[in-house]
Parts: sequence; C-alpha cells; structure tokens
Amino acid sequence: MGIAGIKALTFDVFGTVVDWRSSITREGQIFGRDQGVEADWERFADDWRALYQPSMSKVRSGEVPWTKLDDLHRMSLDHVLAKMGIAGISDDAIDHLNRAWHRLDPWPDSVEGLTRLKEKFILATLSNGNVALLVNMAKRAGLPWDAILGAEVAGHYKRQPQAYMKTADFLGLAPQQCMMVAAHNADLVVARELGFRTAFVCRPTEHGPSQSTNLEPELNYDFAVSDLIELAQQLDC
Amino acid sequence: MGIAGIKALTFDVFGTVVDWRSSITREGQIFGRDQGVEADWERFADDWRALYQPSMSKVRSGEVPWTKLDDLHRMSLDHVLAKMGIAGISDDAIDHLNRAWHRLDPWPDSVEGLTRLKEKFILATLSNGNVALLVNMAKRAGLPWDAILGAEVAGHYKRQPQAYMKTADFLGLAPQQCMMVAAHNADLVVARELGFRTAFVCRPTEHGPSQSTNLEPELNYDFAVSDLIELAQQLDC
Repeated sequence: MGIAGIKALTFDVFGTVVDWRSSITREGQIFGRDQGVEADWERFADDWRALYQPSMSKVRSGEVPWTKLDDLHRMSLDHVLAKMGIAGISDDAIDHLNRAWHRLDPWPDSVEGLTRLKEKFILATLSNGNVALLVNMAKRAGLPWDAILGAEVAGHYKRQPQAYMKTADFLGLAPQQCMMVAAHNADLVVARELGFRTAFVCRPTEHGPSQSTNLEPELNYDFAVSDLIELAQQLDC
Repeated sequence: MGIAGIKALTFDVFGTVVDWRSSITREGQIFGRDQGVEADWERFADDWRALYQPSMSKVRSGEVPWTKLDDLHRMSLDHVLAKMGIAGISDDAIDHLNRAWHRLDPWPDSVEGLTRLKEKFILATLSNGNVALLVNMAKRAGLPWDAILGAEVAGHYKRQPQAYMKTADFLGLAPQQCMMVAAHNADLVVARELGFRTAFVCRPTEHGPSQSTNLEPELNYDFAVSDLIELAQQLDC
C-alpha cells in the first residue's frame, strides 16, 4: 500500500504538536507571581512531567482503575508542590495550574502544518490527554482536529496496543490506512508493529536545550521530518 | 445558571443538522441508476429509517452486544432491499449505498450556524452515528465540530442516559454546562431530565412534506428556533 492508501493521520500531541515544557514553565511563572512563590519553574515543569509515565503505569497495570489524565496530573502536581515546600494554596488556584495542560502552545509550525494536512487527510489525536484537555487545547491554540481520539475514549493509555487499535477502529479504518505522527521513537515502534504507517517529527528541544533523546529516527519510518509543514510538503499537501 | 454558564452545545445530527431523507433518496436514485433498478426511493429512505430505532433497541436491551450504527444500518439495508425484491447486487455496491449515511447533506443553515456558534461554544456531536460516519460526514459537509462524541464512544445509544452523561463527562463539564440541541422532543426531554440545557430546532420537513411529529416544542425549553442561524443569533454569536 502506497501513500495513496493513507486516509488518516493520528497524532501524538504532547511534544509532537505542542511545546509542553515552555508552556508549563510559563504557567508556573504566572502561578508563582500570583501566589508570591519563587521557584525554578523549568525544573518544576520537568519534575511534573517526570511523574507522567509512572502515573499512567499504575492504570496500565490495573493497580488503579481508569483515571483521566487531568486527575493523574493533579495527583502528580500535589506531589511536586509538596516536594517544593509550597503549601497553603487554594484548591481553585491549584486546579487552574493543573489545567495548564489545557493551555499548551503549539510549536510554530503546527497550526499551518495541520491546516494543510487537513485538506487531504482525517486528522485525529491519538494522545494520552483526556478529551476535555485536548478539546480545550485545540480551541485555544487553533488546532483543526477532525476527531479527538486516543486514550480516554479507548480506555487504555499508550503504549498499550488497544489505544492504537481502538483509534483505527473508531475511524473505521485498518491500521495500514492510518499514519502515526510522533516525536517519540517508542510511540512509533509500537504503532508500526501494529500495522500503522509512521512519521517521525524531530522536536530537539521538547525537553529543553540539553535534550539527549529522540533526536533521530531509530527505525526506517515512512517519513522523518523536522516539522509539520515539512510533513505537509512531503505528503503533497 | 444563566446562558453564561453554558460551555458546550451537544448536537443531535440526523434530522437536526443534516437532511437524511433527501440525501438518502438521492443516494438511492444514484444506486438505482447504476444498478438498473427502478423503485420509489423516497419510500426506500423512509423504510430504511423506520428500522433505525428497532435496530438500536436490540443493543439497548442487551439482546445483541454493542454494534456500530454502520453495521446496524447494513443489516437494515439488507432487509429493505430484500423486501423490495432487489437481489444480485455486489457487496461493494451495497456497502457504498450503506455509507450513504456518511454523505448526508446539511440543512442550508447548518454550516453558517455552527461556524458562528463555534466562536463561543464547544460544539460536540451527541449522535447515535458512529465516529467514522460522523467524521466522514463532517469532512464532506464542512461541519466544524470540536469533538465527535455520542453513542459509540459512550458505548450506549440514545436515549439511554449514559449516552448524555458520558458525553458531558468526556467534555469535563456538568450537564448544566451543556445544552442539547435537537429537532426531536423525545431527545430533549431526556436531556433536560439529566440536567442539560435544551434547544429545540424545528425541522418540519425532516420526514417529508406530510410530517406530523416534532412540529412544535412540547416543553418549555431554554430555546426554540427555526434553524441554527437563529440559534446563533439568540446566543449572541
């Protein structure tokens, strides 16, 4: 099956489409200013994100029942704030900070790239973000998704196979008709094993200036590009 | 809670946003021409649609396991074609006809109305249509949904309460923050009982020129309008 057989592009979002680290750092700075707290907010972003995979692991293993990413984020945030010695903050203020993940900024190429790709393909999220998070993010950032799919509606977090397979099934497509677009090799490796086409987007500063992972495609994916505008070009959009 | 508290509009689709009867009649005519079959294609549309609620009833009651609307439509279509004495058609041609529900035309006001409403509200489907059907319909018709929700991702057909409540939950909203928009009193009655705000859209020719049902709002809904442009006006969009 050539490129002509691809009907949908399914996107990882955090890191691939939006720049979570800069955005969470900014939201931490705003929180700090409002609450009169000084801290290293880049480190805060990294520490919060570091609890992301461990928090989902408990759901994947069945140790805890299905929990939305918003709620996992909140548990992780409470932990990080406690570790930073930040206390006495109102629940509303912490909830607003928790929803910083709804207010992530896109990479500079994302809106133009997606808008061009949408002319030719179905664009769906295949993210661990919950539906509300992704809808609110899209409204604010102008991300033109055709469908908000992924972990919450599949009932399984990536990189469990069901997250991918249920997304293809919701779209009424075979895995071969879907192309997974991600900045993370581990995501693409699983998608490819399941029959998805794959596109690697290099995001060398997702984790800041000293990032050492995901700087190169580790397999021979169908596409490897530097941003979503280049992907649109390569897909003749 | 006033109008200011409404965050999302959740839409019935068949009949409310798109004109299924004219579209299915047209698709039947194309099928008839291609296959050399003469028939009353308006009656075909009505007969096919008449099997819609009974087919979902079997899923609602648990008599059959979860089945996508595409697949229920196909079983109903096979039944209707057999009753019409139409046989010897290729599976591909029947499948194409079955997917006529992916190619329904919007009412003349729908795209403008939704586009205006989208500026102020989250727009989500709350339809019995499966995700692929609704995504393909939206791509073709230009319906600017923020999220494709409803029966399939909720795992329950309307008018089971879970279809509504899970949609609100996916959006991270209380029912009171959602307004159900529908051309069918029965849909709005259930939504209102569950705490949704409600808007009735009068579609007096959904069932053709001699329609006798849903010509008037049967309860005192929050809004009652003649089309989606009027709804946008009433919501200051």
